[in-house]
Amino acid sequence: MSSNIKSHVIGIDVNLTTTTISVVNVRGDILGTTTLSTGAYQNVSSFVEAITQHAVELAEQTCGLAGVRSVGLSAPSANYLTGSIENAVNLPWKGSVPLSAMLRDRLGLAVAVGNDVHATAMGEYVYGVAHGMENFIVISLGHGGVGSCFFSHGHPHLGNRGFAGEVGHTCVVKDGRLCNCGRKGCLEEYASDRGIIKTAQEVLAESDKPSLMRDLEELTPLTIGVCCDQNDELALEVYRRTGYYLGIGLANYASVINPEAIILTGEQTQVYKWLGTPMEQSFEEHVFGNIRNKVKLVVSTFDNHERDVLGASALAWTVKEYSLFL
Amino acid sequence: MSSNIKSHVIGIDVNLTTTTISVVNVRGDILGTTTLSTGAYQNVSSFVEAITQHAVELAEQTCGLAGVRSVGLSAPSANYLTGSIENAVNLPWKGSVPLSAMLRDRLGLAVAVGNDVHATAMGEYVYGVAHGMENFIVISLGHGGVGSCFFSHGHPHLGNRGFAGEVGHTCVVKDGRLCNCGRKGCLEEYASDRGIIKTAQEVLAESDKPSLMRDLEELTPLTIGVCCDQNDELALEVYRRTGYYLGIGLANYASVINPEAIILTGEQTQVYKWLGTPMEQSFEEHVFGNIRNKVKLVVSTFDNHERDVLGASALAWTVKEYSLFL
Repeated sequence: MSSNIKSHVIGIDVNLTTTTISVVNVRGDILGTTTLSTGAYQNVSSFVEAITQHAVELAEQTCGLAGVRSVGLSAPSANYLTGSIENAVNLPWKGSVPLSAMLRDRLGLAVAVGNDVHATAMGEYVYGVAHGMENFIVISLGHGGVGSCFFSHGHPHLGNRGFAGEVGHTCVVKDGRLCNCGRKGCLEEYASDRGIIKTAQEVLAESDKPSLMRDLEELTPLTIGVCCDQNDELALEVYRRTGYYLGIGLANYASVINPEAIILTGEQTQVYKWLGTPMEQSFEEHVFGNIRNKVKLVVSTFDNHERDVLGASALAWTVKEYSLFL
Repeated sequence: MSSNIKSHVIGIDVNLTTTTISVVNVRGDILGTTTLSTGAYQNVSSFVEAITQHAVELAEQTCGLAGVRSVGLSAPSANYLTGSIENAVNLPWKGSVPLSAMLRDRLGLAVAVGNDVHATAMGEYVYGVAHGMENFIVISLGHGGVGSCFFSHGHPHLGNRGFAGEVGHTCVVKDGRLCNCGRKGCLEEYASDRGIIKTAQEVLAESDKPSLMRDLEELTPLTIGVCCDQNDELALEVYRRTGYYLGIGLANYASVINPEAIILTGEQTQVYKWLGTPMEQSFEEHVFGNIRNKVKLVVSTFDNHERDVLGASALAWTVKEYSLFL
């Protein structure tokens, strides 16, 4: 490779507690990682200063700063189209924070920012199971809720203002459970961690049968999954219902997108052993006939660390190397 | 304009009874139109021969054949990605018909084919209210059902096999009305003409109140609309319910797409006076908060003839002029 080809990027994943900085090469090898505490920086300038220092140091220890092409940063509520973090609910910095421009000016490198699930989808496309796919959906089943991003003919669909992908707030049950967002029957109320817990409470209240779930200190998707491992009938019923509703939401989504695949990621994929079969059955039952049994339903092969680091890094490849003066 | 710029296209709209051929210029002016009977050609070769003769004749009468850049053809089940009509249920020709290649070979011009609603969306983008928009949804509320096509960042989203946009078969009522497709609660069962008629029958059966609808020779969306014009309470209730369900379906769609606008077209827009307000209320009630009151809900300004002719013509601009040997 010619020496003036810069074949590394810096990926920065900002979450509520920790910011993870990595150097990644074109093949998706993670050459080095360092972390800092997101919450320690109440002031966005000091945060930018800190990640700049960490990033430069890490680059010098790995590929050398001259080998870095560009930077990708994923953060909650980060908007690729504006380059800003927009009113993130749980981050210390309020309002619209032009993080892309601030970091670009400080680092002297082109910077792309995107929200978590946009970054995750880019990571799957550049380095993961979606490599080579033109149309696919990534679904994030995490603590916060149900997020998504889909690719349209090789490009992430962000929508008019960058707010696309809110499948978690599509209605799967008319007049169903009241959602945090104020509406009723949102997918998130059935398929997120809090949705699964509500379903478990419902299943337990409906029945007098014994269940290991009754003895749990804390009902969580994972502890319910442990009960499933013991062949607990009511725990299995929780994932039967969860899978059923998730299948409806994904089928509605797939009927308008016609994706090659739906890639599942996030904490709830750890219980895919129990969630997967009912979800797939409901999906095939509800999806439009033309594409029935033609959409691949797959779980991401990345662990959480890879997902975050490779997602942020993948964003970096989408900016022009010399877009510094845009 | 230099004389070697070809500034006209031929648009061919194939529907079950009639095929309409037009010559259209870059501005969307329809310079001439001719028609032939689709059903008269049981053999696809004779159909291609007939439209070739009509098209050449029409071109010579208007801009001259040398002024024609390319050809767009819209037909039920036409697939832009393959250039073929794929198993159209009601057309005389069965199987996969490579109409794009056949017409290209006979006419010596580049040809694009697309299905009805893809063509309609292209027409709105090139010549209509979507001009200048990057992300929008076109919804066709017609006799056959509820179709759609959306644009992602300036390009029509067709999906992995060209089957995207099946919003008519997304589930809006869990365990709702049985659809022709075999599933339950599809939007089409509530918002298509047959859905509206079912709702009218339901409303009439539920109530003993007098209604002009009881005296109708035939319940249709339009005759129900005429009852609404007379302030008939039960007829108004039909469109209240129809609008409510359509609003859910469109809100779910918009929550994943984040469109700048949703453009409504097709026969049911003739009753938008009655359908519109309940649809808009339900849409805003069900759409994700970030985009509430930010999606333009508009009715196409085209009449049916303009929609068909300009839609097919718009497809023609999407092919390379010299793609003859592809």
